[in-house]
Amino acid sequence: MALLDEGAKGVYVIAVTPFTEDGALDLPSTDRMVDFYLEKGATGLTVLGMMGEAPKLTAEESRIFVRRVLARVQGRVPVVAGVSAPGFAAMRELSDSVMADGAAGVMVAPPANLRTDDQIVSYYDMVARTLGPKTPFVLQDFPLVTNVQIASSVILRIVAAQPSCVMLKHEDWPGLAKISALRAASDKNGGRRISILVGNGAMFLPEELSRGADGAMTGFAYPEMMVDVWKAHAAGEVERAHDLFDAYLPLARYEQQPGHGLAIRKYLLAKRGAIASGMVRSPGSTLSAADIADIERLVARQARRLKEIN
Amino acid sequence: MALLDEGAKGVYVIAVTPFTEDGALDLPSTDRMVDFYLEKGATGLTVLGMMGEAPKLTAEESRIFVRRVLARVQGRVPVVAGVSAPGFAAMRELSDSVMADGAAGVMVAPPANLRTDDQIVSYYDMVARTLGPKTPFVLQDFPLVTNVQIASSVILRIVAAQPSCVMLKHEDWPGLAKISALRAASDKNGGRRISILVGNGAMFLPEELSRGADGAMTGFAYPEMMVDVWKAHAAGEVERAHDLFDAYLPLARYEQQPGHGLAIRKYLLAKRGAIASGMVRSPGSTLSAADIADIERLVARQARRLKEIN
Amino acid sequence: MALLDEGAKGVYVIAVTPFTEDGALDLPSTDRMVDFYLEKGATGLTVLGMMGEAPKLTAEESRIFVRRVLARVQGRVPVVAGVSAPGFAAMRELSDSVMADGAAGVMVAPPANLRTDDQIVSYYDMVARTLGPKTPFVLQDFPLVTNVQIASSVILRIVAAQPSCVMLKHEDWPGLAKISALRAASDKNGGRRISILVGNGAMFLPEELSRGADGAMTGFAYPEMMVDVWKAHAAGEVERAHDLFDAYLPLARYEQQPGHGLAIRKYLLAKRGAIASGMVRSPGSTLSAADIADIERLVARQARRLKEIN
Amino acid sequence: MALLDEGAKGVYVIAVTPFTEDGALDLPSTDRMVDFYLEKGATGLTVLGMMGEAPKLTAEESRIFVRRVLARVQGRVPVVAGVSAPGFAAMRELSDSVMADGAAGVMVAPPANLRTDDQIVSYYDMVARTLGPKTPFVLQDFPLVTNVQIASSVILRIVAAQPSCVMLKHEDWPGLAKISALRAASDKNGGRRISILVGNGAMFLPEELSRGADGAMTGFAYPEMMVDVWKAHAAGEVERAHDLFDAYLPLARYEQQPGHGLAIRKYLLAKRGAIASGMVRSPGSTLSAADIADIERLVARQARRLKEIN
Repeated sequence: MALLDEGAKGVYVIAVTPFTEDGALDLPSTDRMVDFYLEKGATGLTVLGMMGEAPKLTAEESRIFVRRVLARVQGRVPVVAGVSAPGFAAMRELSDSVMADGAAGVMVAPPANLRTDDQIVSYYDMVARTLGPKTPFVLQDFPLVTNVQIASSVILRIVAAQPSCVMLKHEDWPGLAKISALRAASDKNGGRRISILVGNGAMFLPEELSRGADGAMTGFAYPEMMVDVWKAHAAGEVERAHDLFDAYLPLARYEQQPGHGLAIRKYLLAKRGAIASGMVRSPGSTLSAADIADIERLVARQARRLKEIN
Repeated sequence: MALLDEGAKGVYVIAVTPFTEDGALDLPSTDRMVDFYLEKGATGLTVLGMMGEAPKLTAEESRIFVRRVLARVQGRVPVVAGVSAPGFAAMRELSDSVMADGAAGVMVAPPANLRTDDQIVSYYDMVARTLGPKTPFVLQDFPLVTNVQIASSVILRIVAAQPSCVMLKHEDWPGLAKISALRAASDKNGGRRISILVGNGAMFLPEELSRGADGAMTGFAYPEMMVDVWKAHAAGEVERAHDLFDAYLPLARYEQQPGHGLAIRKYLLAKRGAIASGMVRSPGSTLSAADIADIERLVARQARRLKEIN
Repeated sequence: MALLDEGAKGVYVIAVTPFTEDGALDLPSTDRMVDFYLEKGATGLTVLGMMGEAPKLTAEESRIFVRRVLARVQGRVPVVAGVSAPGFAAMRELSDSVMADGAAGVMVAPPANLRTDDQIVSYYDMVARTLGPKTPFVLQDFPLVTNVQIASSVILRIVAAQPSCVMLKHEDWPGLAKISALRAASDKNGGRRISILVGNGAMFLPEELSRGADGAMTGFAYPEMMVDVWKAHAAGEVERAHDLFDAYLPLARYEQQPGHGLAIRKYLLAKRGAIASGMVRSPGSTLSAADIADIERLVARQARRLKEIN
Repeated sequence: MALLDEGAKGVYVIAVTPFTEDGALDLPSTDRMVDFYLEKGATGLTVLGMMGEAPKLTAEESRIFVRRVLARVQGRVPVVAGVSAPGFAAMRELSDSVMADGAAGVMVAPPANLRTDDQIVSYYDMVARTLGPKTPFVLQDFPLVTNVQIASSVILRIVAAQPSCVMLKHEDWPGLAKISALRAASDKNGGRRISILVGNGAMFLPEELSRGADGAMTGFAYPEMMVDVWKAHAAGEVERAHDLFDAYLPLARYEQQPGHGLAIRKYLLAKRGAIASGMVRSPGSTLSAADIADIERLVARQARRLKEIN
């Protein structure tokens, strides 16, 4: 399997981790989910992300789940695995395991206690040494959740110092100026250009693509939205990209409720047949009748609007 | 002027504070802005909110600005003034001043160091005593900015203990379940029912109205969106409320960029003639050419979409 | 081996995790360290605490280390193991392992995202169900590090709801009033009385014992300080307890430097022959020449002062 | 009155703000307090610090209090005033007022939302422009309270960029390495050497002086401790400095309880006759009978120990 590199583009869907109703790993659903994402046009998959409930798995479960995904994908698209961990020993163990099984790269978010620029640069230096030079990694920049703010200049320092850092999972908010700054640094100032895939549930996807993002690495129960917006944009049809985006936006916004969105996403994935159950491991939220009424209304409106514009 | 009470409903626009290009209070623009908000259908105004750059004003500037707004409004709608302060002496001073000048009530957000339930309840007990029994107050619940999480049960304790707490500015995120819980408490369990106006740039307005919110208290460069959505919803035309909401959502979402949205809002208010300059006092953000291109595109798309649905 | 219960008292030393110079688990040093702590009078041991570098171990290393400690202790004193984890699956796995190997109980600190009272109570309900009714647990209350503030009333709710919660590791700061409140609740109001052992490097040990603490569960390179202070206090010799405490205080204070203290503690433990190397796993701090000069001066002064008072 | 400059040394006591029992500014006590601090050997005073309850004063009260202190001091020692504020307009107003009244300089702590290096450097650039080139300022580096971590390299950037930054109030914890780094930068690398006065209740004063600090700027009910330790250290009597420090340490440690220490300090200052009442403005803590018993024991022990070593 080819390794992840700076040229990566398209839509790397952040995969959920399917559980059975009693909370066990659901491996048959894992297969269906992989098929579903690929049918919808995913150009890559990212597993064990935050929305993949990674911290709720044991080390052994993590390995089993990644192995199952890789077996089903069979090299059709690159698979990235989140390996963020409280310590480097556990990070190395998981990274070595998934890379040996065929992952294309790994992703690392910063721990919450990092503050100064040097602390962040130094942390990713330790990450790169932990992973080793043959394991490409994605830097996840998600301050809303990690509580770590990484300046553009710090990302550039990490990119300069760590050849194995090949991608930014961009989910600072606001973050448009950051994409512009990073692209200016590589385009005008000769820095190495890495791939930038955006997160945040794709809530700013059309504008982010215009600023120079290469695609998205995030989740949504309708991943075809990201694929279609990205394709339209890549084809130069910017207004069309916005039309598609706007049709999905009311539901995408509803799914972007911190700490609650995963239950919404899994409910819809189950409804769409991608997984057997919407079960979220504890601690997690559940949907009320009012939530479901909201979702059903938004889905119906979305279907109508898509019909209008297609 | 009538005081704010539990029956308040509609749209209380969070007003910006207009400055001249060199950063001074712009009092003529203050008049125009008041006229603008009222023409667009505001049923109330809220000044000195977070998006009103309240912390950037001196105590004297705050008093002058509120006085000007009140003079222009001339009692046509109630005016609420934010009086959050690091200490109670400054809070009392400002509250006494604005109430003497004719404000209908004041608003208080919790300081960032509050954590436990009892700390929050105790803080609002001190607030109520500071303001005095004749000054109705709005409890602002905005964890994204204040970093204070207030459980529904804590809001109910405050409501029970403080008769002068007459309104919740609801901007927890996610927050739909909180509205449901608060309404259940008053509707089924006999608690005092206070007004709930929603914030967060109205990003969940239709769903929040369905849960029992009485309207919105937030800002957006197109406040008529909130007014029209609220009116349609109140008339039972829920799908129509969503249609209107969806038309504005792409721009509303763009304006909801923390720390950057105010520059966008003021740019648009200046463009619409409501204020003379989009100037934001330091520290604040400025718009890049790319930002303005984004905004102009979204405004044009919004105009087209509104034409389609009207 | 007897299980931990509400009657626990004395000094449960927070054990370091010894590493060789190249960062591997140092099992021979583990034996020497156990012997050292027991010779100094420890009435219990706590392993895999924060100062035991627990997050830097793999799941397998954690199990190996605890097993080695238990084998060396051979039931002479109870051993508590920290099992805090980002998710319940990993927590259960580790807890089941250490309890099967003979631990007396486990310790759980709250995750950083808990805020409201109900969130904390609910979290420990999930903890108790995860561990099962046969595994006694210690509630670790350490806001400086966890960023979670637990009111006395919340601790009492947890104690009332969870019979398997038998001990509080008390390290709120300030925290004296909390001990008083908890003791009043059990002594006067009939609540279940649990064991309270204090942390924070024992920086308030004499005063905490006077408020009703049952001893200490914390670390210091001179654990005999805690043992001797506790014994003197238990014998009613309060001034003597203070004399001893004061003699060690300058060094204890120096060791209480967040994020740096562990390097100091391990340096001194190595110097005293308890472990082979002062090595701290990355990320961790190292001692400068100036640090070592400070330490050596404080150790010499401490020795002189102890001679004076003995 | 001479302005504060880089050569400042000695002990700048952080003054409390005395209130009457009913919470009003106590101006007669302000005079007595000034006399008390000067009798104990203070070489400077700092008013409106965090422990001076600055945020609890109105703008007018702040000005009145500083004016009273300056009138009593009559130029005998330099007086620094804290002017930290949520916005620059209020900061400028207060700074202009106190400098016009004869203050030697002002002090500014960073607001809690600063994170990246550039954000901090940029903030102090705005501070320097707000204060103007004729107002020397103290950079307060107190992460435990401000939640802002300022790397040594960032302090050096601020010192290089802002000639009016003449002093660091050093209270990072741990912070010894920071003093060493800053002194190395000026001593070996030719940077401008600014004054470093240490905070944190002087809990590391002897070691900090050895690293190159010029004295202390902090509070303690026995400010003579800081004066005597500083004098002994300056005279080369390092062991004597430690002897003195150790005698006061048990009480100093007790006073260093965050959020509770001010009530202890004011109780002792009232007991010593420096102020009329130990009243702390709300929100603030009060002392329990058990607290007072602790304090009285520590004071008695301290008196005995001082007798032994003198």
